Amino acid sequence: MTPVRAPALTEMAATLCFVLVLLIPCAAAGLALINAGLGRFRNAAHSMLSALCVVAVAAVVYFGIGAALQGYAGQPAFALHATGKDWNWIGAGRFFLGGLELGGWSSLAALFGLMSVGVAAIIPLGSGADRWRLGSSCASAILFTAWTYPLFAHWVWGGGWLAQLGFLDSGGSGVIQVTGGLTALSITWILGPRRGKFNPQGMPSALPGHNAVLVLLGCFLAWLGWIGLNGAGVILFTAVEASRTVLVAVNTTLAAGSAALSVAAITRARFGKTDASLCANGWVAGLAAVSAGCGVVRPAAAVIIGLIAGGLVVYSVEWLELHLAVDDPGGSVSVHAVAGLWGLLAAGLLAAITPGKAPWQWLTQLIGIATLLGFVLPLTYGLNWLLNWLSPQRVAVEGERQGLDLYELGAGAYPDFLTHNEDFWQR
Amino acid sequence: MTPVRAPALTEMAATLCFVLVLLIPCAAAGLALINAGLGRFRNAAHSMLSALCVVAVAAVVYFGIGAALQGYAGQPAFALHATGKDWNWIGAGRFFLGGLELGGWSSLAALFGLMSVGVAAIIPLGSGADRWRLGSSCASAILFTAWTYPLFAHWVWGGGWLAQLGFLDSGGSGVIQVTGGLTALSITWILGPRRGKFNPQGMPSALPGHNAVLVLLGCFLAWLGWIGLNGAGVILFTAVEASRTVLVAVNTTLAAGSAALSVAAITRARFGKTDASLCANGWVAGLAAVSAGCGVVRPAAAVIIGLIAGGLVVYSVEWLELHLAVDDPGGSVSVHAVAGLWGLLAAGLLAAITPGKAPWQWLTQLIGIATLLGFVLPLTYGLNWLLNWLSPQRVAVEGERQGLDLYELGAGAYPDFLTHNEDFWQR
Amino acid sequence: MTPVRAPALTEMAATLCFVLVLLIPCAAAGLALINAGLGRFRNAAHSMLSALCVVAVAAVVYFGIGAALQGYAGQPAFALHATGKDWNWIGAGRFFLGGLELGGWSSLAALFGLMSVGVAAIIPLGSGADRWRLGSSCASAILFTAWTYPLFAHWVWGGGWLAQLGFLDSGGSGVIQVTGGLTALSITWILGPRRGKFNPQGMPSALPGHNAVLVLLGCFLAWLGWIGLNGAGVILFTAVEASRTVLVAVNTTLAAGSAALSVAAITRARFGKTDASLCANGWVAGLAAVSAGCGVVRPAAAVIIGLIAGGLVVYSVEWLELHLAVDDPGGSVSVHAVAGLWGLLAAGLLAAITPGKAPWQWLTQLIGIATLLGFVLPLTYGLNWLLNWLSPQRVAVEGERQGLDLYELGAGAYPDFLTHNEDFWQR
Repeated sequence: MTPVRAPALTEMAATLCFVLVLLIPCAAAGLALINAGLGRFRNAAHSMLSALCVVAVAAVVYFGIGAALQGYAGQPAFALHATGKDWNWIGAGRFFLGGLELGGWSSLAALFGLMSVGVAAIIPLGSGADRWRLGSSCASAILFTAWTYPLFAHWVWGGGWLAQLGFLDSGGSGVIQVTGGLTALSITWILGPRRGKFNPQGMPSALPGHNAVLVLLGCFLAWLGWIGLNGAGVILFTAVEASRTVLVAVNTTLAAGSAALSVAAITRARFGKTDASLCANGWVAGLAAVSAGCGVVRPAAAVIIGLIAGGLVVYSVEWLELHLAVDDPGGSVSVHAVAGLWGLLAAGLLAAITPGKAPWQWLTQLIGIATLLGFVLPLTYGLNWLLNWLSPQRVAVEGERQGLDLYELGAGAYPDFLTHNEDFWQR
Repeated sequence: MTPVRAPALTEMAATLCFVLVLLIPCAAAGLALINAGLGRFRNAAHSMLSALCVVAVAAVVYFGIGAALQGYAGQPAFALHATGKDWNWIGAGRFFLGGLELGGWSSLAALFGLMSVGVAAIIPLGSGADRWRLGSSCASAILFTAWTYPLFAHWVWGGGWLAQLGFLDSGGSGVIQVTGGLTALSITWILGPRRGKFNPQGMPSALPGHNAVLVLLGCFLAWLGWIGLNGAGVILFTAVEASRTVLVAVNTTLAAGSAALSVAAITRARFGKTDASLCANGWVAGLAAVSAGCGVVRPAAAVIIGLIAGGLVVYSVEWLELHLAVDDPGGSVSVHAVAGLWGLLAAGLLAAITPGKAPWQWLTQLIGIATLLGFVLPLTYGLNWLLNWLSPQRVAVEGERQGLDLYELGAGAYPDFLTHNEDFWQR
Repeated sequence: MTPVRAPALTEMAATLCFVLVLLIPCAAAGLALINAGLGRFRNAAHSMLSALCVVAVAAVVYFGIGAALQGYAGQPAFALHATGKDWNWIGAGRFFLGGLELGGWSSLAALFGLMSVGVAAIIPLGSGADRWRLGSSCASAILFTAWTYPLFAHWVWGGGWLAQLGFLDSGGSGVIQVTGGLTALSITWILGPRRGKFNPQGMPSALPGHNAVLVLLGCFLAWLGWIGLNGAGVILFTAVEASRTVLVAVNTTLAAGSAALSVAAITRARFGKTDASLCANGWVAGLAAVSAGCGVVRPAAAVIIGLIAGGLVVYSVEWLELHLAVDDPGGSVSVHAVAGLWGLLAAGLLAAITPGKAPWQWLTQLIGIATLLGFVLPLTYGLNWLLNWLSPQRVAVEGERQGLDLYELGAGAYPDFLTHNEDFWQR
């Protein structure tokens, strides 16, 4: 029950970790492209600008507040006394990176957080696409970065109670992907579906993304970014040799690839055509799912994690749309929340290498999953509901018709190109 | 005649090599963008998705089979006894990375292979653009990754008979670029030209790519990716200090730049206009050519390699089209096969630094070149011919007319944009 | 007054520095995308190709000449004797990297220069967009790379007189950004505004960029590239521990983010809409401004640097257009020159960590700023004026009407897409 201390890194490990952290912006860029490409052309600039602003907000707010609350194992924290034990629940660091040794590797975890919280905060933009106001998405990102993310991250990576229990999430399937994905789910509920998505009988119609090339380019960038996320996470939050990152890169690549192929096979078999957007979603779902266990599973297990993550995405996208009337243009809920939860469980089931090889690891993983669904989802829903009550997060009807680019930014993304004018609006 | 052992890497060299390997996805992304941009708009999503799927297939198959057959210097291998010597011809490793030490740098070469085989497997997509079925390109990638690539890679990088002879190919001009480029040539022969490419008199007409910005963005990404390829290759397969990679990066940049400028000057002089697509092809040809000798030539030699590679591309593209009726939308044959072969020879002629400074190095290089043309080309042609015999690789006539996006994926890449409807088909 | 010697790097620091240098191509790619996206569709391929060619020219010319003139601290140099002291003013190295130890870290600074001069040389392309001939931009890049850049870089980074005075510019706010930005200003003056930009009464009209998605994607890539620039610069030119680069990455991210948010807030408040192009400009301005002091300011100071850089961009763009009739489609003058100058001053005012904490540091910074405005600007203007006198740098009227893609390259960037035909020309 002593708090898990972050391993003291050798200078070599710290250097490698730093370089891996620097790949994380590629994950942000990749998700931004995927969200923009899966949205309508009249919201493309808005989507990209929202991603940039959310990354900016996340960095500034995490620097100001989030890093202090997340803390690191072995650093000051507040604990609740219950069931005869101390449950470490929130960091007690200094705001504005006050304790940061200027120069020196000790701030690596802060840099990791600063960048990865941006990735997590971009995830809901995919779900709110085409109807979420820029100001509201920034405000939502503030709440996420200042409270939701650091709270759960403290529990898992900051020496908190889940870390005390031995919960395993090296690369952030839970901390980054599921927290982002559940916020995305809350946003779809709060904003409601796009006009024209469901007919009066509640049947959904397909509103295809406006640029598949951007979406698939985003997958390549996300691949690179995730190797950074997963590798840096394994070094920072798992007491292993830095060389374990080679395995991490192998596993990350295999999971992404097998997930994409899984979706390709399933969509081909079911619809007679391979669905490019879903394949892209599958690729990222493989990445999201493998993060948790990337440092403790064998490559064959990474393939299995990917295959199942891909299958989950296909069915989850359909199920959410048909049964929960969730309109999620970027597929963020399925890709990040559903596949991320699967990844957390899979890490417990398939871990073959220490740490993480405990016989009841899967049970610990279930406790983390239950916490995400039973606590983080209501929390992030509640915060965004409050925000919506203060100031409606959805753009005005007129803005959705015009497109967010013209309505909120005053200029379209592609002013020189002719586009189809038949209005999906009227359907 | 003892097999060349992979040098035992220091931890520093291993760390640097790992980081360089992580840049390789940029090469894959770059080639994917170039192929997509040089194809027609109606096949853009198909092109990008094919690249993603081929990378995925390559990773999974290389993990399963290819890595075992490629092997590494000093590891178990099969040898043929001939001319009084043992000729090491194929690796005898365990499938599914069975021997992979989980964690530890020993799997670096496997990770390098896993990523670089994906780059090689993307190359033929440029040649088969606008008419190659997704399923067939994946099947072709399976054959390439499971047999063609690891076989030749074993000979050069796995302690095989070419390595025994002292064949020099640090970054893969031969192993990656030429094997991919000759497969691309086979694919153009097997698929035949696009409808409308040649008139009944056999004269080619220009079918310009649909997005030059993507093509040129791809060049920037390829630059980064190739520094990774070349640098990691030099560390893994040449017994030199890790600091040699600085020279590699200088040489790689100079070769790419001088090749692009060479093309710019030639096309300006010949046609009065600078051809952007050919400049992009030239840039990548410079990269492909410098790979072989990047660690053993002086920067001035890298400039020469680039200048000649650029010139070769201009004339090769024209010659292949006019004299061999090869329809290669992405220019992959000229860029990767022709420039790669030149690079192999140049490494022998211009090597100034050990290793590679042997007086007869150019002769050894010619043996490698002859092996590629005399053995690898028939092999890859034969395998793809068989595949085509089992199931035609070319899409149905109707699919080519509609575009592969609609026909195979059920949705266009750019559904919101208006495009020219005059059909190149009818010409 | 002894020349500042470049610190002897440990192998670890050299390795990290090398890896950071390899991220610099992302900065080049990012600026290329921003320039292309902020220009008209009819010049998009030309813009990207110019960037590629300029990078190529810069690499080759810097290799041939620039590196020798820039030199490094402690290497041979020429000095002028004045005011009783020796003023080191130009390097005396060997051309064609003649002294480069082949293999070995000693060439790291040359590689850094080779790549960063390309970034600087791309900057003027944004200002000359839509009317600068490809050949002229390459010729201008030759002059810049062979003389303007290495001269000032020698003064600051090569042990020259500004280094002797203690001038602080770790990541190149002055050396890279301002030299590029002042060249951009010269180019706008020499080329004159685009037809249709100003009406006969001199009032400017907005000519929006053709692709906001490219612009914003460029911001993400620039982020990555700048971390490389700033981090490598700090290691090479500031005698600090390699671990200082973590602080550099934090500062770089915070400055970019706060600058973008600053622009978003200002444009929203002033115009009622958030201007996406200006936000992108702000993001890069934050990057350009923080380079100088990235290694010696606290994160909170980086936020301040960014906030002010963003504000400067908004007002500077407007002021240059209204009062100096500068037509700068990419905003390069404001983003790189104005924000870069602010960054140089800010480094002096806000430096909190050695080196750079001297009480009169701000005065030294002002000397550098005065040198840039009083010497580098006339120099680069004069060189480009001469070039223009030899051969007009602006494309013929017909070329501007047709678009540079068709006129100089013979093919449009997007031949398959329908575009608006109302001609901005006539306005």
